[in-house]
Amino acid sequence: MKDQLTHTDQAGKASMVDVSDKPVTARTAGASGAILMQAKTLAAIRDNRLKKGDVLATARIAGVMAAKRTHDLIPLCHPLVLNDVQVAINERDDGKGLNVATSVRTSGKTGVEMEALTACSVTLLTLYDMAKAIDRHMEMTDIKVTSKAGGASGDWSLDDQ
Amino acid sequence: MKDQLTHTDQAGKASMVDVSDKPVTARTAGASGAILMQAKTLAAIRDNRLKKGDVLATARIAGVMAAKRTHDLIPLCHPLVLNDVQVAINERDDGKGLNVATSVRTSGKTGVEMEALTACSVTLLTLYDMAKAIDRHMEMTDIKVTSKAGGASGDWSLDDQ
Amino acid sequence: MKDQLTHTDQAGKASMVDVSDKPVTARTAGASGAILMQAKTLAAIRDNRLKKGDVLATARIAGVMAAKRTHDLIPLCHPLVLNDVQVAINERDDGKGLNVATSVRTSGKTGVEMEALTACSVTLLTLYDMAKAIDRHMEMTDIKVTSKAGGASGDWSLDDQ
Amino acid sequence: MKDQLTHTDQAGKASMVDVSDKPVTARTAGASGAILMQAKTLAAIRDNRLKKGDVLATARIAGVMAAKRTHDLIPLCHPLVLNDVQVAINERDDGKGLNVATSVRTSGKTGVEMEALTACSVTLLTLYDMAKAIDRHMEMTDIKVTSKAGGASGDWSLDDQ
Amino acid sequence: MKDQLTHTDQAGKASMVDVSDKPVTARTAGASGAILMQAKTLAAIRDNRLKKGDVLATARIAGVMAAKRTHDLIPLCHPLVLNDVQVAINERDDGKGLNVATSVRTSGKTGVEMEALTACSVTLLTLYDMAKAIDRHMEMTDIKVTSKAGGASGDWSLDDQ
Amino acid sequence: MKDQLTHTDQAGKASMVDVSDKPVTARTAGASGAILMQAKTLAAIRDNRLKKGDVLATARIAGVMAAKRTHDLIPLCHPLVLNDVQVAINERDDGKGLNVATSVRTSGKTGVEMEALTACSVTLLTLYDMAKAIDRHMEMTDIKVTSKAGGASGDWSLDDQ
Repeated sequence: MKDQLTHTDQAGKASMVDVSDKPVTARTAGASGAILMQAKTLAAIRDNRLKKGDVLATARIAGVMAAKRTHDLIPLCHPLVLNDVQVAINERDDGKGLNVATSVRTSGKTGVEMEALTACSVTLLTLYDMAKAIDRHMEMTDIKVTSKAGGASGDWSLDDQ
Repeated sequence: MKDQLTHTDQAGKASMVDVSDKPVTARTAGASGAILMQAKTLAAIRDNRLKKGDVLATARIAGVMAAKRTHDLIPLCHPLVLNDVQVAINERDDGKGLNVATSVRTSGKTGVEMEALTACSVTLLTLYDMAKAIDRHMEMTDIKVTSKAGGASGDWSLDDQ
Repeated sequence: MKDQLTHTDQAGKASMVDVSDKPVTARTAGASGAILMQAKTLAAIRDNRLKKGDVLATARIAGVMAAKRTHDLIPLCHPLVLNDVQVAINERDDGKGLNVATSVRTSGKTGVEMEALTACSVTLLTLYDMAKAIDRHMEMTDIKVTSKAGGASGDWSLDDQ
Repeated sequence: MKDQLTHTDQAGKASMVDVSDKPVTARTAGASGAILMQAKTLAAIRDNRLKKGDVLATARIAGVMAAKRTHDLIPLCHPLVLNDVQVAINERDDGKGLNVATSVRTSGKTGVEMEALTACSVTLLTLYDMAKAIDRHMEMTDIKVTSKAGGASGDWSLDDQ
Repeated sequence: MKDQLTHTDQAGKASMVDVSDKPVTARTAGASGAILMQAKTLAAIRDNRLKKGDVLATARIAGVMAAKRTHDLIPLCHPLVLNDVQVAINERDDGKGLNVATSVRTSGKTGVEMEALTACSVTLLTLYDMAKAIDRHMEMTDIKVTSKAGGASGDWSLDDQ
Repeated sequence: MKDQLTHTDQAGKASMVDVSDKPVTARTAGASGAILMQAKTLAAIRDNRLKKGDVLATARIAGVMAAKRTHDLIPLCHPLVLNDVQVAINERDDGKGLNVATSVRTSGKTGVEMEALTACSVTLLTLYDMAKAIDRHMEMTDIKVTSKAGGASGDWSLDDQ
C-alpha cells in the first residue's frame, strides 16, 4: 500500500485521482456496520417485522438508493455505473441491535468500497431515524470495508486476516 | 419516551410522521462520531494539514452539503430550512484517529438530529475516501446524537447523563 | 376558475407564478391512480406480500421520496416544506391490478396537488419496474387529483361532484 | 417471460437484479401516455403554442431531464449512460387532450423501459402543472411501454401484436 | 459593508453563517450576464426563435430549475423556499450575443443573490451547450448582481450608482 | 464546423443529440474564467489562505462536485462517467481578482466542454458567495472553453489560435 494520500496533489490540494488509464474491470466490495440500541427498541423493530412491517425494507431501500448517489455525496468519488447493490440487515448475536452488511458490484475503472460504505451508513441512519422516538441513545458503530475484489491493489477480505 | 415506532402505522407500514400541527420552533441538535486509523494514516492527514492541505476542509464541506440533503437520503425525514450547519474535525486524544462533531440549527416543526447525524456520517465517509489508499482497515464508530434542544420532547445532552 | 394558463406570461413564455403575496396556510391534496396488469402478475405481487415481501413497501417509499423532490422534477413548481406524505396501495375490486392513493400536507403558499400526483406516478412506476419482467403489457392509468383543501381556490373533492 | 418477480429474492426482499454478467448492447425503448382535459384547456395550450409559447417545450425538457434521473427515482433501477432521449407531444385525434411519446437509447447492460416511462410520466405531470389552474379534472392515462429492442428478452412492439 | 469574510471562522475554516436570529422578510435579488458569440451563431438562435423553436425556452427552464438547486450546488448557501424565479433572454444591442437577466424572490432569513446568479449562470451554460457545435469561441461574461432588496444590509441597485 | 444548431430538430424543437453510433474515446476539455473584485476583497481571500483557511478549497470542491452534476443541470447534456476533474484557482497578474481553470477527462461518446465550463462557473459562484458580504460589485467574466481533445471535431486549443 501507499504511504501518501492519493486524493491530494503535491501542494496538499484535494483533487480527484485521474483514472483515465485504468482498465475497466469487474469489481466488488463489501462493507458492514452495526446500530446498537436498547432491548425494547430492538423488540419494537422485531415486532414490526413480525407484523410484515416496513422498517427493515425502508432501511434497505434507502441504502440501495444511497449507493447510487455516492459520487454525489463524497466530493472526490468518481461516478460509476453500478451492476448490483445488496443490503442485508440481521439481528446481532449479542442481542444489542442490528448488523448491516452491503455489497456492491460494478464494471468500472475504480473500486466500489465507498459505494458499499455509503449504502451501509445510510441504511444505519434510516434505522436510527425510524427508532429515534423510542431510543435516544442508539449508536452506529464498526462501519468498515470487509472485502474487495477486482482492482489493481489485489483481492482481500477481512476474514483472511 | 414512547414505546412504539413512530414511523410506522398500525399495520406496520412505514410512513412519515404528520407534523402539520406542530409549532415552528428554534431547534438544534449535535452529533459526534470517530474514524479510527493507523498511526501512519493519521500522520499523513496531519502532514496534509500542516502543508495547508485540503483534506479536512473537503470532509467538512461534504458534511455540510450532506446535512442539506438529509431529507433526500433518509426516506421518512421531513424537508427543512436549515439555519446553520457546523462540522468540526479534531485529532483524538488517544491518537487513534479523528473525531467529528456536528451541530445543526433550524426554525422548523421537527428536530434536526438526522441532519446532524448525516453530516457526521458523510464527513467520516469523506475522510475514509481520501485515506483509503494508504489504510484499508479504517473504521467509523461511535456515531450518535450528543444533544438536542427546542422540541416537545425536551432539551437534553449526553453530558447531563 | 381561470381561462388562461397561469404559468405563461403575456408573450407565452413559461414562468413560475409569483407567490410572494400569498399567505402561508395549511394545505392538503390527494391523488390517485392505477396500474393494470395480468392476473398472474397481481398474483406474484400478492404472493410477495404474503411472504412479508418488500414490493409494496419499496413502491410506497419511492412515492414518498418523489413527493419531496417534486419541485426538482417539475420545472415551475415551488419548493415546499412538506408536513406529511402518505401513500397507500390496494388491490382493485375488479382484480385487474393495484390502486394507489396519496395525500400530502404542507404549511405553505402554494397547493400540493403536484406533490400528490408525483408521489402517485412514481409509486406506480416503481410497481411497474418490479413486475416488468413478468408482464410487459402493464398500463398506468387514471392518475388524477382527488381532493384539495386550504388554498384560495376553495376546498373540493372528486366525491362531491 | 418469467413468472416470478425478478426484483425480490427468495425471502421476498426487494433487491436490485445483478447485471454484472450481462453484455453491453445497444438498447432502445419507447413509451406513450396521454393527458385528458377539457376542450377549453386544450385550446389554451394550443393558443400558447400559436403564440410561440413555451408550454410544450417546458414539458418536453422536464421529460428529458427526468429520464436522466430515473435511477435516482426508482429504487431498484440501475444507473445508465443514456445516448438519447426524445419526447414528442401531439394533440389527440379525438380532441380530448394530448398524447406523449418518448424514446430512449443506451449502450448498457439493462433495458431502458423505465427511462422511457419516467420521461413520459414527468412530461405529463408538467403539462398538468401548467394547466391545473384552469382545469382541475385532468387525468393522465394509458402510460405504457410501446416497444423495446436490444436486450436478451427479444425485440417487440405493441404494433406487432 | 464588512471587511472580513463572513463564511470563515477565526481559524479560517469555511462555515455557514448562522441565520437563526435573522427575521423572515420578503427579499428579492436580480442578476445579469451575457454570452458573446459570432454573428452566424446569433443568427442561428434567432432563426430558431422565429420558427417557434425551443432554444430560449430550454435555457430559461434550465435557469429556473438551477435557482431551486442553488443550496445544493454552492456549499455554504442556506436552503430557501423560493416564491418566484424569472429569467429573461434578450439580444444585445451591439449584436454580439445575448443578455440574460434573472430575478428571484423569497420570504426567508437570507438574501437570494446566489439564486439569481446561479439561475443566470446555468441559463448561459445552457445557451452555450446548444450552440457549441457551431461556435467554439463563445464566452460568458459580465455575470453580476444588479439589485437587492429586503435584507438588513439595505436595498440597492446597480442603476443607483 | 456546422452552421446549424445541433440540439434542435427541423421543427426547431430542442432535443438531445443521439450519440448511439459514436465511438467511446478518451476525451478532455479545459475551461477558464475569472472573478473580478476589489483589492480589499482579494486581500481578505489571500489572508484566509495564509491562515490555512478553506475559502479556495471550498470553491474547488464545489467545482468538482458540479462537474459531476452537469447532465443534471444542463437539460440536453448526456450523462457521462468522468475519469478526472481538476480545478485550479490563482490570483490574476493584474491583481484584480482570481482566475479559475478547470480540466475534465472522460472515456465516453461525447465531449466534456460543458463539464469543464460548469465546474468553472460553480467554482466562481462559490467564491462569489463567500466574499459577497464584503464586496457587492464582484463580476464573473471571460468564462470559455480553452482546449478540447479526443472527439470527431478534432483537437484544438485557444493557445494555438
